Amino acid sequence: MTRTVFFVSDSTALTAEMLGHSLLTQFSGNHFHEMTIPFVNTPERADEAAKTIREQSANDDRRPIVISTLIDPALRLHERIPEALHLDLFDTFIDTLEHELEQKASHRAGAAHAITDINEYMDRMEAVNFTMNHDDGVHPRDLAEADIILLGVSRSGKTPTCLYMALQFGVKAANYPLTEEDFAIQGLPKILQPWRKKLFGLTIDPERLAQIRRERAPNSRYATPENCRFEVEESEALMRHNSIPHLDTTTLSVEELATTILHRTGLKRHGFS
Amino acid sequence: MTRTVFFVSDSTALTAEMLGHSLLTQFSGNHFHEMTIPFVNTPERADEAAKTIREQSANDDRRPIVISTLIDPALRLHERIPEALHLDLFDTFIDTLEHELEQKASHRAGAAHAITDINEYMDRMEAVNFTMNHDDGVHPRDLAEADIILLGVSRSGKTPTCLYMALQFGVKAANYPLTEEDFAIQGLPKILQPWRKKLFGLTIDPERLAQIRRERAPNSRYATPENCRFEVEESEALMRHNSIPHLDTTTLSVEELATTILHRTGLKRHGFS
Repeated sequence: MTRTVFFVSDSTALTAEMLGHSLLTQFSGNHFHEMTIPFVNTPERADEAAKTIREQSANDDRRPIVISTLIDPALRLHERIPEALHLDLFDTFIDTLEHELEQKASHRAGAAHAITDINEYMDRMEAVNFTMNHDDGVHPRDLAEADIILLGVSRSGKTPTCLYMALQFGVKAANYPLTEEDFAIQGLPKILQPWRKKLFGLTIDPERLAQIRRERAPNSRYATPENCRFEVEESEALMRHNSIPHLDTTTLSVEELATTILHRTGLKRHGFS
Repeated sequence: MTRTVFFVSDSTALTAEMLGHSLLTQFSGNHFHEMTIPFVNTPERADEAAKTIREQSANDDRRPIVISTLIDPALRLHERIPEALHLDLFDTFIDTLEHELEQKASHRAGAAHAITDINEYMDRMEAVNFTMNHDDGVHPRDLAEADIILLGVSRSGKTPTCLYMALQFGVKAANYPLTEEDFAIQGLPKILQPWRKKLFGLTIDPERLAQIRRERAPNSRYATPENCRFEVEESEALMRHNSIPHLDTTTLSVEELATTILHRTGLKRHGFS
């Protein structure tokens, strides 16, 4: 039985989606048909949204669920489509906060993801550029400038994690790929030695690694289970040997990896913009 | 007057932060001291979190605000620190949803950002790798594989926007930098001609562009107001001439850019993992 769920917002709908996902993952076994309706920022668009919701859920056995972040009361969907179940972020929490802060909410739409602090925003973009330009960049200058250096074998998750940290948290993340050359020497690669405190390792289940590598390079030695097992064992030995904190990426999403690393290293999370 | 606000979660705290930010931006003029406490996933850590909250807000005139997503009732902070104002996502909405769906919530912590669909997750990572490997990549093969091709002058915001679309929505975004060579010819650059329907332009205020470029390359011709004005005028003319939809990035955040482009082009947003 399908239940249609709508994420509706006057702006990007990112908050409504994230809020909704957090809630819906608590109800496994259901089949949710999810639909996002962003930029509902005029009464006409609110009418349209109500129409879309009605049409899209017309054949469902049960009423639609509308998870929304609509700050302007004139845009609210409750009266436009009273038959739906409405969970609205602002409706729910804004009164409490107005009372607590002894201040009226601005009711300005679309403020959540707007650029609020231009300097912070520039920092984030600078971190993104740094990470883009220095992916698998092992120049001493890059390592010196980095806030953190992730190391691990090829396809252990370094690049997406670096990017997420840069984009979401403004952290300059560099990336050192461990290869057979590094395993041949004992100890830490020379170029990393001045930066021990910035190092964080990523490891991964060898079978999962082989699976990921096969998609890119089928029938290569690089992707064989034996080679993947060898590389993972050697890289873990290197990390243990040098007391480098590390994390197994096998079952973690990029979001979980990035936040866990920040938490463990104590690196500052910058606010969202 | 500073008010201390805590974002607390049994997992990444990304949802609590986003939820909190959406609410707090409605109360401008306040100075919020924000602190994130992620991974509160045992009763001991919940005790610790309560202690941290109490200590960090000890010198405030007003009580702290705790915005949380704690799914396990044994971890809830209400009783551990009753003097705070608590806004908890699950507390607020989960009963309504249990009733509506006629199902008990799983109360499994950390589900929101875990990998729920491995294929979808792999798609997102593939999109990230595509975008990383083809940044300013103008090979015909890349353009053929892309879901969307952003074009604009250097530093108009193409790269961060592409990355955000890949990382958040699993969209393969390629990137075509418009340069003087393109302005010299009339019409659309030849390499883009087969892909008219995938094109989306970014433009920017020339003064803002000059400011951004000066940070990277001070005293260069590239960063002069005259050159920036010329490039922006030419690129906008090219977009208008070829009926390429476009967006001014000057005051928009990456989140707003990415979601607006998806909305306008009708490209599918993939779910979060």
